Amino acid sequence: MNSHDSIRSVLWRGDRLRLLDQRRLPFAEDYIDCLSAEEVAQAIRDLVVRGAPAIGISAAWGVVLAAQRGRAALAAALPILRAARPTAVNLMWALDRMQRRIAEGADAAALEGEAQAIQDEDLAANRHMGELGAALLGTDVGVITHCNTGSLATAGYGTALGVIRAGVSAGRIARVFAGETRPWLQGARLTMWELVRDQIPATLVSDSAAAHLLKSGQVQWVIVGADRIAANGDVANKIGTYQLAIVARHHGVKFMVVAPASTVDMSTSSGEHIEIEMRDPDELLAHSGQRTVVEGAVAWNPVFDVTPAGLIDALVTERGVIEKPDAARMQALFA
Amino acid sequence: MNSHDSIRSVLWRGDRLRLLDQRRLPFAEDYIDCLSAEEVAQAIRDLVVRGAPAIGISAAWGVVLAAQRGRAALAAALPILRAARPTAVNLMWALDRMQRRIAEGADAAALEGEAQAIQDEDLAANRHMGELGAALLGTDVGVITHCNTGSLATAGYGTALGVIRAGVSAGRIARVFAGETRPWLQGARLTMWELVRDQIPATLVSDSAAAHLLKSGQVQWVIVGADRIAANGDVANKIGTYQLAIVARHHGVKFMVVAPASTVDMSTSSGEHIEIEMRDPDELLAHSGQRTVVEGAVAWNPVFDVTPAGLIDALVTERGVIEKPDAARMQALFA
Repeated sequence: MNSHDSIRSVLWRGDRLRLLDQRRLPFAEDYIDCLSAEEVAQAIRDLVVRGAPAIGISAAWGVVLAAQRGRAALAAALPILRAARPTAVNLMWALDRMQRRIAEGADAAALEGEAQAIQDEDLAANRHMGELGAALLGTDVGVITHCNTGSLATAGYGTALGVIRAGVSAGRIARVFAGETRPWLQGARLTMWELVRDQIPATLVSDSAAAHLLKSGQVQWVIVGADRIAANGDVANKIGTYQLAIVARHHGVKFMVVAPASTVDMSTSSGEHIEIEMRDPDELLAHSGQRTVVEGAVAWNPVFDVTPAGLIDALVTERGVIEKPDAARMQALFA
Repeated sequence: MNSHDSIRSVLWRGDRLRLLDQRRLPFAEDYIDCLSAEEVAQAIRDLVVRGAPAIGISAAWGVVLAAQRGRAALAAALPILRAARPTAVNLMWALDRMQRRIAEGADAAALEGEAQAIQDEDLAANRHMGELGAALLGTDVGVITHCNTGSLATAGYGTALGVIRAGVSAGRIARVFAGETRPWLQGARLTMWELVRDQIPATLVSDSAAAHLLKSGQVQWVIVGADRIAANGDVANKIGTYQLAIVARHHGVKFMVVAPASTVDMSTSSGEHIEIEMRDPDELLAHSGQRTVVEGAVAWNPVFDVTPAGLIDALVTERGVIEKPDAARMQALFA
C-alpha cells in the first residue's frame, strides 16, 4: 500500500463524525467528535476541518447526524450548515445533493449512503485528476503550490496536491515548493506535514518569495486548488492565489487549477459575483492567542481572492481538462 | 513639535551606542548598549538594528568605538563591521566614508564628528525625500508599503515611510496599507507600531493579499525603500518587493522607490550582480523559538529580491527624482 493513501481527516463513525483537528497540526494529531449537525457547522467555522471538498463532505455527514434525530432536526440543520462558510461552493453542492435525496423521501440510512457516496466519489475524482494533471507536466519540472489541497482538504489524496503526488510518483516532478499561506499557514503547517509524511522532498517558502523563486527558473508550474469556479472559468481560491497567477504569467510559468466538478458553480457568471469571506483581523494581529501587532492597529483579512480565467493555463477536473478556460469551454464541459 | 520626529532607534552616548532592540517591538521598548565595534556588528547580524540607512549609521558609530580603543582595534573592527550583512550597500558606503577619514589621519574625536554627520545628513535627506516623493502623489490616493522604512530603519522620519508621513501631512494620502512582511514581520511589528504612534490610520494586510487589494482600486502607489540600487536602476529590497512591483504594474498602480544616495551602488552594473542574503530557515520554520512546521521540513529563506528598473515608475533620492530609471538617467544623477 502506498503511503500517499494513509491520511484521512474526515471519518464517519455511525453516530458521530470524527474530524482531525487541523488547528493543532502539525504537532498534535487530535480528533474531535461531532455529535450533531450544529457541531459540524461549528467545526467548519472554526477551521477544525477546511478545504472545499472536505467541507462539503463534512456537511453531508452533518445532514446524516441531523436525520438520525428526526425531520425537525433535519430541517433546522440545513440552513446552519449552509451558512458555515460562504466561499466554498462544494458546501452548497453537497447540501443540495443531500436535499434532493431528502425530497425523494430518503431515510437516515439512505442519507448515510449518499454521504458515503459523496466521500468515495471525491477520493476517486482526486485520483483521476492526479493522473490528468500529471500528464500535463513536462519532465524534470519544478512546481509550487499554495495553501493545503491534500488529503486534509479532501476525502484523500488531494486536488492540486494529488497532481503533485501523481507527478512525483510518475517521475515528472523534480522540485516541490510550498508557500506558507498567511495568515493561517496551511502551507507551512499542513502541506509540509503531508509532504514530509509522504517522503516527498519539498521546500517551504514565504508567500512573498514566489516571484524571486520563479525568476530563478526552478519552477515551471504553479498548481493550486479552488473553492469556487465561476461559469466563465474565474477561480476563487485561498488569498494569494491571484498574486501567484500574475507572477506566474509574468515569468512564463504555467498555472494549473485542480478541483472536482462539485467546485464549479455554473450559476455564478463570473468571479466578481463570488462572495469573498472576510475573517477575524486577529488572524493577522495575533499568533497563538498572543498579540504580535501594536494595540490600536487594524487589519484587513480577506481569505480568498479571484483569479481571472485569462491567467489560467489548465483547469483539471475529474470530467477532463480545460486548457485556457473561458465561458464557452466551461459550458461545453459543465452545462 | 511634530510627533513624527519622536522615535530614535540609534543613539550615540559618547562611549557606547544605544540601540532600540527591534526584535522586541512592538511590546517592549528595550535598549541594548554596544560597547565595541564587535558588539555593533553582532547587533546588526541579529537584527537588533535593521534597515539599510540605520545599519550604515550604526556601523559608523562602531568605527568610532573601535577608534576610541586605538589603531589596532580600529584595523580589526573594519572587516568585522563590513561583513555584518551583505545586501545593504549603505553599510559599505558608511564604512568607506569613515575609512577615508581614517586615511586622512582623523582621530577618534574627528571620527565621532563624521559619524554624527552621517546620521544628521540621513535625517535631512529623509525629510527632503519626503517632500519630493509626496509631490509625485496625486490627491486622495491610497498607498501600500512593505517592510519597515521609517524612523526605526533610518536616522529618523524614514525613506518610503517618510514619503507616506509627508503625504499624509500634506493631505494627499487618504489610505495607508502595510504588508506584514514575512518572515520577520517588519511591517506588522514595526511599521504598524510607528503609524499607530503617529496616529496615521493604516491597515495591515498579509503580503499575499496585495494583488486582491490593488484590484479593488483602493491603492494608487506602492512605496518602498531599498537596500541597494544598481547602476541601471535595479533595486534590491526586502523579499516581496519584486512581487509587489509585478502586481502593481499588472493593475496600473505606480511603484515608487525611496532611498538616500548612499544606497546607490554605481559599481554594480545591474541587480543580477547583487548578493542576496540568505537567512536561517528557522525564520520560516519556527515562531518565537517554537517550531511551527513539522520536523524534517526544509525552507528557503532569501530575505531580499531584485526589482528590475523597468518596473519602477519613480526613484526618489535626496539628490532628486528619477522617473522610469535606467542606466543613462542613473549616470546623469549619480556619476
